Amino acid sequence: MFTKMPYGGDYNPEQWDRATMEEDIRMFKKANIDFVRVHIFSWALSQPDEATYQFEWLDKVIDRLHENNIQVGIGTGTAAHPAWLAKKYPDVLRVEFNGMKRKFGGRHNSCPNSPSYRTFAKRLVERLVERYKDHPAVVLWNVSNEFGGACYCENCEKAFRVWLKKRYRTLDEVNRVWNTRFWGHTFYDWDEIVAPNLLSEHFAENRTMFQGISLDYARFNSDSMLECYKMEYDVIKKESPDTIVTTNLMGAFKPLDYFKWAKYMDIIAWDNYPAFDTPYSYTALMHDLMRGIKDQQPFMLMEQTPSQQNWQPYNSLKRPGVLKLWSYQAIAHGSDSVLYFQMRRSRGACEKFHGAVIEHVGHEHTRVFKEVAEIGQELVDLSNTFIGSKLPSKVAIIFDWENWWAIEYSSGPHADLKYVEQVHKYYEALYKQNIQVDIVSTESDLDQYEVVIAPVLYMVKEGYADKLERFVKAGGYFVTTFFSGIVNENDLVTLGGYPGELRSLLGIWSEEIDSLALEHKNQIVLKSKLGQLQGKYDCNMLFDLIHSEGAEVIAEYGEDFYKGRPALTVNKYGKGEAWYVATNPEQEFIDHLLMEICERQNIKRVLNTPSGVEVTKRMNDENEFVFVMNHNKESKTIQLQGAYEDLLTGQLYQDQLTIEANGVMVLRV
Amino acid sequence: MFTKMPYGGDYNPEQWDRATMEEDIRMFKKANIDFVRVHIFSWALSQPDEATYQFEWLDKVIDRLHENNIQVGIGTGTAAHPAWLAKKYPDVLRVEFNGMKRKFGGRHNSCPNSPSYRTFAKRLVERLVERYKDHPAVVLWNVSNEFGGACYCENCEKAFRVWLKKRYRTLDEVNRVWNTRFWGHTFYDWDEIVAPNLLSEHFAENRTMFQGISLDYARFNSDSMLECYKMEYDVIKKESPDTIVTTNLMGAFKPLDYFKWAKYMDIIAWDNYPAFDTPYSYTALMHDLMRGIKDQQPFMLMEQTPSQQNWQPYNSLKRPGVLKLWSYQAIAHGSDSVLYFQMRRSRGACEKFHGAVIEHVGHEHTRVFKEVAEIGQELVDLSNTFIGSKLPSKVAIIFDWENWWAIEYSSGPHADLKYVEQVHKYYEALYKQNIQVDIVSTESDLDQYEVVIAPVLYMVKEGYADKLERFVKAGGYFVTTFFSGIVNENDLVTLGGYPGELRSLLGIWSEEIDSLALEHKNQIVLKSKLGQLQGKYDCNMLFDLIHSEGAEVIAEYGEDFYKGRPALTVNKYGKGEAWYVATNPEQEFIDHLLMEICERQNIKRVLNTPSGVEVTKRMNDENEFVFVMNHNKESKTIQLQGAYEDLLTGQLYQDQLTIEANGVMVLRV
Amino acid sequence: MFTKMPYGGDYNPEQWDRATMEEDIRMFKKANIDFVRVHIFSWALSQPDEATYQFEWLDKVIDRLHENNIQVGIGTGTAAHPAWLAKKYPDVLRVEFNGMKRKFGGRHNSCPNSPSYRTFAKRLVERLVERYKDHPAVVLWNVSNEFGGACYCENCEKAFRVWLKKRYRTLDEVNRVWNTRFWGHTFYDWDEIVAPNLLSEHFAENRTMFQGISLDYARFNSDSMLECYKMEYDVIKKESPDTIVTTNLMGAFKPLDYFKWAKYMDIIAWDNYPAFDTPYSYTALMHDLMRGIKDQQPFMLMEQTPSQQNWQPYNSLKRPGVLKLWSYQAIAHGSDSVLYFQMRRSRGACEKFHGAVIEHVGHEHTRVFKEVAEIGQELVDLSNTFIGSKLPSKVAIIFDWENWWAIEYSSGPHADLKYVEQVHKYYEALYKQNIQVDIVSTESDLDQYEVVIAPVLYMVKEGYADKLERFVKAGGYFVTTFFSGIVNENDLVTLGGYPGELRSLLGIWSEEIDSLALEHKNQIVLKSKLGQLQGKYDCNMLFDLIHSEGAEVIAEYGEDFYKGRPALTVNKYGKGEAWYVATNPEQEFIDHLLMEICERQNIKRVLNTPSGVEVTKRMNDENEFVFVMNHNKESKTIQLQGAYEDLLTGQLYQDQLTIEANGVMVLRV
Repeated sequence: MFTKMPYGGDYNPEQWDRATMEEDIRMFKKANIDFVRVHIFSWALSQPDEATYQFEWLDKVIDRLHENNIQVGIGTGTAAHPAWLAKKYPDVLRVEFNGMKRKFGGRHNSCPNSPSYRTFAKRLVERLVERYKDHPAVVLWNVSNEFGGACYCENCEKAFRVWLKKRYRTLDEVNRVWNTRFWGHTFYDWDEIVAPNLLSEHFAENRTMFQGISLDYARFNSDSMLECYKMEYDVIKKESPDTIVTTNLMGAFKPLDYFKWAKYMDIIAWDNYPAFDTPYSYTALMHDLMRGIKDQQPFMLMEQTPSQQNWQPYNSLKRPGVLKLWSYQAIAHGSDSVLYFQMRRSRGACEKFHGAVIEHVGHEHTRVFKEVAEIGQELVDLSNTFIGSKLPSKVAIIFDWENWWAIEYSSGPHADLKYVEQVHKYYEALYKQNIQVDIVSTESDLDQYEVVIAPVLYMVKEGYADKLERFVKAGGYFVTTFFSGIVNENDLVTLGGYPGELRSLLGIWSEEIDSLALEHKNQIVLKSKLGQLQGKYDCNMLFDLIHSEGAEVIAEYGEDFYKGRPALTVNKYGKGEAWYVATNPEQEFIDHLLMEICERQNIKRVLNTPSGVEVTKRMNDENEFVFVMNHNKESKTIQLQGAYEDLLTGQLYQDQLTIEANGVMVLRV
Repeated sequence: MFTKMPYGGDYNPEQWDRATMEEDIRMFKKANIDFVRVHIFSWALSQPDEATYQFEWLDKVIDRLHENNIQVGIGTGTAAHPAWLAKKYPDVLRVEFNGMKRKFGGRHNSCPNSPSYRTFAKRLVERLVERYKDHPAVVLWNVSNEFGGACYCENCEKAFRVWLKKRYRTLDEVNRVWNTRFWGHTFYDWDEIVAPNLLSEHFAENRTMFQGISLDYARFNSDSMLECYKMEYDVIKKESPDTIVTTNLMGAFKPLDYFKWAKYMDIIAWDNYPAFDTPYSYTALMHDLMRGIKDQQPFMLMEQTPSQQNWQPYNSLKRPGVLKLWSYQAIAHGSDSVLYFQMRRSRGACEKFHGAVIEHVGHEHTRVFKEVAEIGQELVDLSNTFIGSKLPSKVAIIFDWENWWAIEYSSGPHADLKYVEQVHKYYEALYKQNIQVDIVSTESDLDQYEVVIAPVLYMVKEGYADKLERFVKAGGYFVTTFFSGIVNENDLVTLGGYPGELRSLLGIWSEEIDSLALEHKNQIVLKSKLGQLQGKYDCNMLFDLIHSEGAEVIAEYGEDFYKGRPALTVNKYGKGEAWYVATNPEQEFIDHLLMEICERQNIKRVLNTPSGVEVTKRMNDENEFVFVMNHNKESKTIQLQGAYEDLLTGQLYQDQLTIEANGVMVLRV
Repeated sequence: MFTKMPYGGDYNPEQWDRATMEEDIRMFKKANIDFVRVHIFSWALSQPDEATYQFEWLDKVIDRLHENNIQVGIGTGTAAHPAWLAKKYPDVLRVEFNGMKRKFGGRHNSCPNSPSYRTFAKRLVERLVERYKDHPAVVLWNVSNEFGGACYCENCEKAFRVWLKKRYRTLDEVNRVWNTRFWGHTFYDWDEIVAPNLLSEHFAENRTMFQGISLDYARFNSDSMLECYKMEYDVIKKESPDTIVTTNLMGAFKPLDYFKWAKYMDIIAWDNYPAFDTPYSYTALMHDLMRGIKDQQPFMLMEQTPSQQNWQPYNSLKRPGVLKLWSYQAIAHGSDSVLYFQMRRSRGACEKFHGAVIEHVGHEHTRVFKEVAEIGQELVDLSNTFIGSKLPSKVAIIFDWENWWAIEYSSGPHADLKYVEQVHKYYEALYKQNIQVDIVSTESDLDQYEVVIAPVLYMVKEGYADKLERFVKAGGYFVTTFFSGIVNENDLVTLGGYPGELRSLLGIWSEEIDSLALEHKNQIVLKSKLGQLQGKYDCNMLFDLIHSEGAEVIAEYGEDFYKGRPALTVNKYGKGEAWYVATNPEQEFIDHLLMEICERQNIKRVLNTPSGVEVTKRMNDENEFVFVMNHNKESKTIQLQGAYEDLLTGQLYQDQLTIEANGVMVLRV
């Protein structure tokens, strides 16, 4: 898609005078910045009233960038509607989860089902496309910005009913899938259905009295935003079919089912903002998730801060070298760009303390600018070598937004069960071993994998149990956990014994699920040593009380009235194996379990490294690139097999290498 | 009322197909289930629109149950109104404490003063009664379900003004009792009075700027719900005067003054849902409270879970034996039934993870079903022997909802003072000694008691001080605490020195009340050993600075500027004694104090047991039944005087017995 | 203004009968109470409907007080509107921060921009003034009561737009100062501007997406309340130009910019309610702030409790002697009155558990009354000697409400940065040394000071950097801290490098600001010993990474990647010095730093005392009065130079004195 990795980021020259823009461009060149994203929040400027569009300012910006060989990603600007629109067409304003109608303010503030919003957003994009579709600088279109939130207004309610009709056809079917006989909720007319929020079924954001309606509203809300995206996408593609259209996503962002979105995005783009205490493996998981939502295609790192954020409680500076380390971490997991929010710090409003390539001091003699410029130079030198390359993987982790919503809407069995935390635990075990992982959806083909892991696969969609059975029969290894196989896609329990449709695959029946406060621990006791798995491990939270129905019992509970009952089982099934982890173990257990399973499937690490040194591999037809990243505060030595060249320095390594604290190496085998 | 303890519980066949019902009935019989509660949330099903009622489905259910000798408690179904009603008659929807008008959703969602709700609820009940009053299976009517919540709509405001007129006659009297001269709140017109909530006098649920109006609104809200109950009660009784009418209560449920409700209930019924960390003594107190609200009559345990709940943060399984232990605990405290929520787990919506007799697996080969069936068999064998028997008691604890409301609405002196906690502390001291307690209202006759305890009797209603004085004069022992005797029933301070109307009975004047953060402790120092009372005990929270006006000072404070001033006093008064505990002591002090007072009144324990072994006694004309319950995780040995037969096993015990962990014995003397 | 310190406080005889008032007066005389504040919340009583005013009751009260030589401060009564007004003219009701329209209830409940409120409030005051302006008892007018809160109704929105027009003239200027190009917020019509609250720009009380509008709304809200105050002030002064008009303030009360208010107050009055855990130095700071807002004039302690409060979570009694100690602490910091809330405890409503001179017991034989009477006698004997005297000071601390608002609206860099906490830390260092401090505004003249301290001077208003430069050039010592010099008065960043306009004065450039969770500490390491400053000190929160541009580096960071970079600098500038503290140090560092700076400027302590013994000095033309206050729980001995007479006892001290626990001495040199 690109031949050189785009380098640059968000640029808002409309906040500054002309002379400042010239100064910006001078500095961009010093840093080898060759791509900027403009017009992200410029609707109000480009359309000062209903009848008037004024793009002359934007013409000048884009022309001047073009004259300086800087490519442009053009934002459609629809993420924040103008104040005049809100005043004249209040249907653009959202109704909040608590039922209050909003007034003008904030951002991403438009109701996705507002007729006025859709009309005016479309008109704006039409004019933008018409004007810039042939501009040689414009290489990418960014629809809106960080779609998110939700609305509960009457227009949304009406649209929800239409959505339901489309999905379920009859009200009888709605009543059935929501189980409305419970608590006498039967609907006899579509118009009786209202949005589920604090005024109706919810008593907290994540606590609902009717899971079915809340789950469908989550789907509907994601779809409504997606409709807005697609509307703009279609407008752009109609006029400019070959351009790249995308929008910037946000990793494991709960409200939007990005697997559905990815189908309509030419390339995935996402904004990476780890908090001051985010584990490195979590960031890696986010990159892999973003790669995964579009079939493992390379993606764009659309935003990251060059120095610090402003909206965290504590906004630590990136330590020297960390900007480079994290930029290469993105590349190492599949990014084909390094982009920042933002080029120049605003003088006012809520992001003025967000880091930028050009700080408030206004010149280039800053630590941050120097680090930015250094990366810019490397990308010029290098990035054409590995751009477009893929990450080979034999292991997949299933990630499913609908499952996530359903688990966390559930009333019981345990308030502290968080889906992404569970996914992260299994991911981390592989991350520590430098075993590459693809994050896949329930629609993904599993044939290419040796091991498939589905942490807390609570919701098993129609046909999915069959797919898993076929995978295992054919020799695949499948791992799943407690609270899996419980419901279908309408959050209706699969009757006949847990884990429902997975029961025969796993060879177990889970009779009961105990749920204890987290401080109350039990143990997983191995019946005999199995690779690294030996002795006992702590576990807590949920405890399945299972009966083996053919599965081999590998480990048992160590305490309580279910002492001696199975805690870890494996079921031979066809040529493969289906593993079941009946409780929430300490991390070390999962580390050892997955190590064992990978060894059984002969899955190798990219490299063997000390703790905190991350390694990934990207490949293209010619080469293999090994990215080595040292997240430690001290240098580390790694044993090598074979010879490697560090593309960043040209240095050759044989047998071993030493990587400095926060260091990065890009090795060519 | 019953000749055999009803055994069974909530049953919702309308959520399932016909074949499932047949399977249910088969299993009911296996478990000796002979009573189910139906139609609890079936309004929407039974009345699909304003003009149509359809009860054929219910006919079939009840007939089929009857054919299988299963009795039916029929719910009126008015706890959750249908969606069509909410849409067509929005006055049925509540306005929340924060002032927002609700939409359709949730349960117990109707405004109690909604004209439409009252009209349609009444019509439904009329039709139900007409249809089922003579059905031989129907032995009980359950009005609505777990009444609760509150509404702040305009209809409620209007009804509140009517309620006020009835109670106070004139606006002048309202102004007087609310002390509206304070902060210039004088009302000159009834219509100026609005509901006290977050938009008017409250800044939090329990924090009001005008205690008088909030207290009256609490009374009004309880009365409004009671009006709804009584409306249905009257409809049923008019047609079916001999049937049993009740509704299921919820223990120490703050919003409803159950002493008032009990007058209109043929039998008390309540739902027992201890949390994962509820002390056993607290559950015992709740049973005794439910027995107490209707003059110590036996009550119905209307709901408990056979295994786990779903709406707690952590929903632990009942350990093996615990279901039986807790079922007998209910009986031991006066229940004449053992009933469950629910017969079969729902497939969908918010209670699908709530335990049931028939689990999602759908068959009877589960631990839970087996435990249920075992109890069922025992009740068939035994329950006719002790049904209807009473619990003899010489000790009463006063419990008063209005006092509760007033204490916790109070602005000062201490944010952490919780009424039920204080009641529980005194209850627990007696519970540990196996001394039986009646919980009584301020209207109850005290003559039959030797000891009366009134923890934090903040509100002293008209005439109540006289009643207490008569009780003590006649030889009774009275115990009360700090923050007692402060106000009258309008929360107006009794002037002339605390503890107000109790001053002469107690023989003290409390000049000041110190209030310190809980971690700031003082001591109660005994002047000399008195039975178990000796040395010193910690105390905290509130500290009365009292002057004896005739009372004997038994203990003093150990620290601070009031070191040496009285902390525990006793006043000889007529033939009795009035004790005053001037501060909030550690539990052991209360244990020792009540042991001493009971010994002075020669009140005996039912049995002497090790810690964690609870004992109660029920009596009828023929027999005394001693219930022994071991809440410990290990077996315990108890010394006996005399011979006992365990009705559950037929075993005879002399001198001593050993009871297993979680064990239950029902001994006949 | 007064010749004898007014002694007494809030009095609400309208809550009681006539006989009670006579009893009150009898007791007032026993306690030498000679001033009471009446009619504070009596609007509803004095005006029962739109057409009727009834002041006869007030005539009687004031006449009877006058006959007993008790002076009267008359409240205008407009702090709580009557219920009838709210019903008939609902525009008087506020709209809350969450967007909900309030109903009748609470206090200070009127919208400040309500036309009806302003009309009726004015009419009431006109009638009051007309009636009482010549009454010999009336010596003071108290407008409303504890102004506070905010409103977000449409009338406020309209008034806000008018306020903006007046301040900024054009919408272009509004757009500029709010930087509305950010996030496309440009306004094209005044009516597009809405109040910033939870429905528009805020996501929490202190968290806004547009600092500019929120900051201006804070200014506007303070000004709106001030308009209400001024309206009443003008009405009173027009008829009674020589009377004293004031309103009771609340110390560091964030919503109101008291420096602006003080200009329209004849004397500052404030209500001192320390919480159970408020440090003594914080109370001292509040007194000094209240003295400071009106150019160090003596002020009135308008309210304090004689015993305990009721609205804290824990309302501890004032220990014996503490009432006197705290009363003299007020005097020691500039108060010319000692007044209480309240004379007699209410029987009902939310302040019935607030302490009073006359307790619920109703007689004078209480500890509290005796302490009150003792102070009353002392003030009769003594207060004419030191009334009106001033506190000499060579040190000033700058306090700025607008800076406070801006700092705490800021999104980043650190959620835990609290302005008043920072001011208090620097104040406390001086307080411990008995070095007197004036709290000054940014408008205050600095010439009289040797040292000026500006903790976190984030906002530097137009011309203020010049003023500071002039001050230092002329020999002044200036101390400021991290996160200073960042923005102008519109919260727009001063470009060109932090600390912006203070850069040349301080001789530094701060390149970056690190922000870490509070538990993450660094150290300030002294390059060499400097007075008490030596070794190293902990610091946390924010860390400027500075380059010296001429300043001398006194101390460096001890850790992290900026180890060795400046943490404390001093810049010689003209004849003075400008100090910069680049991080948030532990208290001891600030203690030592300010000790060093005061020594350099030869600023002396009033007295040298052990920890916990506070000393201040008031002076008039004849005498110096040294107030010695022992906050310790044990007696302390102090070395003296020279001879002192204790005015309270007549005792003479030479060389040394011993002061008892909670003791007070007023020494004349």
